[in-house]
Amino acid sequence: MQIYQSENLKVYDLVSRYGYLLDQDRLEEWVELFSAESSYKVISRENESLELPAAMIWCDNKHMIQDRIASYRNVNEYNLHWPRHIIGLPLIEKRNASGSMTVVSSYSLFQTDLEGQTRLFSTGRYEFEVLPQSNGFLLGHVLVVADTGLIQTLLAAPI
Amino acid sequence: MQIYQSENLKVYDLVSRYGYLLDQDRLEEWVELFSAESSYKVISRENESLELPAAMIWCDNKHMIQDRIASYRNVNEYNLHWPRHIIGLPLIEKRNASGSMTVVSSYSLFQTDLEGQTRLFSTGRYEFEVLPQSNGFLLGHVLVVADTGLIQTLLAAPI
Amino acid sequence: MQIYQSENLKVYDLVSRYGYLLDQDRLEEWVELFSAESSYKVISRENESLELPAAMIWCDNKHMIQDRIASYRNVNEYNLHWPRHIIGLPLIEKRNASGSMTVVSSYSLFQTDLEGQTRLFSTGRYEFEVLPQSNGFLLGHVLVVADTGLIQTLLAAPI
Repeated sequence: MQIYQSENLKVYDLVSRYGYLLDQDRLEEWVELFSAESSYKVISRENESLELPAAMIWCDNKHMIQDRIASYRNVNEYNLHWPRHIIGLPLIEKRNASGSMTVVSSYSLFQTDLEGQTRLFSTGRYEFEVLPQSNGFLLGHVLVVADTGLIQTLLAAPI
Repeated sequence: MQIYQSENLKVYDLVSRYGYLLDQDRLEEWVELFSAESSYKVISRENESLELPAAMIWCDNKHMIQDRIASYRNVNEYNLHWPRHIIGLPLIEKRNASGSMTVVSSYSLFQTDLEGQTRLFSTGRYEFEVLPQSNGFLLGHVLVVADTGLIQTLLAAPI
Repeated sequence: MQIYQSENLKVYDLVSRYGYLLDQDRLEEWVELFSAESSYKVISRENESLELPAAMIWCDNKHMIQDRIASYRNVNEYNLHWPRHIIGLPLIEKRNASGSMTVVSSYSLFQTDLEGQTRLFSTGRYEFEVLPQSNGFLLGHVLVVADTGLIQTLLAAPI
């Protein structure tokens, strides 16, 4: 029971840190939430329901996630908007035999432009594979299922 | 203290599961979060503040909740939109002498149509009666107070 | 470990209560979440990024917070809208040597008018200084960084 409780709070810490680092534009630290064996994929809910393989973002390993952040930094010299993630309470949906957990969470993502106008950018859900480490938890495979139709672009910030 | 902590995390689990099952269209499993002695009522904040009795949805017992889901399934053969609940951190507002708890939580509910357009559908608050069971927690009387004016319809999905 | 867990849940309790009391228009109780040594400041993200000192609301001590609520009550005899805070999972970002904690949390704030129309009013982040007390936690210095441009007015409700 003790261990069970501790796990929940560590999952909450990881998920809230995920959103906080993105919103603070600390993308290089965000990447470090991912374990060496990880991936990051964004698909649309429509494609998920049709079982279509097309992804909006697909980074198959941690190096690809790092590369994507580096490209994003090079292209977007100045921030054109501020993101804001409101992430719902994470649900530990499954505890896998390997010791990893499947954690799901809803999100709403807003963007504010430099005039101070805020708009809804995307809603959807996260499916986080959470991997226990000797010192806290890290992310394994991360799937983002976006309800909202998004423009596919290399320039986009991670969700 | 140990028991107190465990209670909080079980409440969080129940509330996050509530939103997750609705968003995944797993409505039959959502009904099973309710105990045998339960109810589900949706009222507007305006009617609450005027102390008017009119409800938008009123299921006085679990059978009525089940019936409502069955009707909804019959009428809505295909999903015309995807819901997305972002539920704020639950607050255990009261621990009742009977052992039950009154838990309140804010929500924002978005809908995405088949074109991938997302709009805000409703905001409001939940008042959950949470009932300890031998194996986890279940819902007793659930009151949804919707800030947003809603069209009263038998076809509506639960909030 | 036991103490660590307990701290997290008390922080969650405090933050969820913060939003609940504001949304329920229980502003006088909201003030009592602040310790004797506290402050409440709202700034825009633009000013934060430019390191400009201008604040939208600046209450330098608890008496000023109390005064502001009293003024708000005098001017706004009737509620013209209902607020709704959806506060994301709090992140304990730092544990300070003094025993206090720095806790950050994203928010989305909606307003519903008397016609039942809901609109997004503001998104942003909280930076809460959380002070352990003999009986639970209280707020010290609270900084609200609003992404959304807001009209500066003495009549505004706290965020």
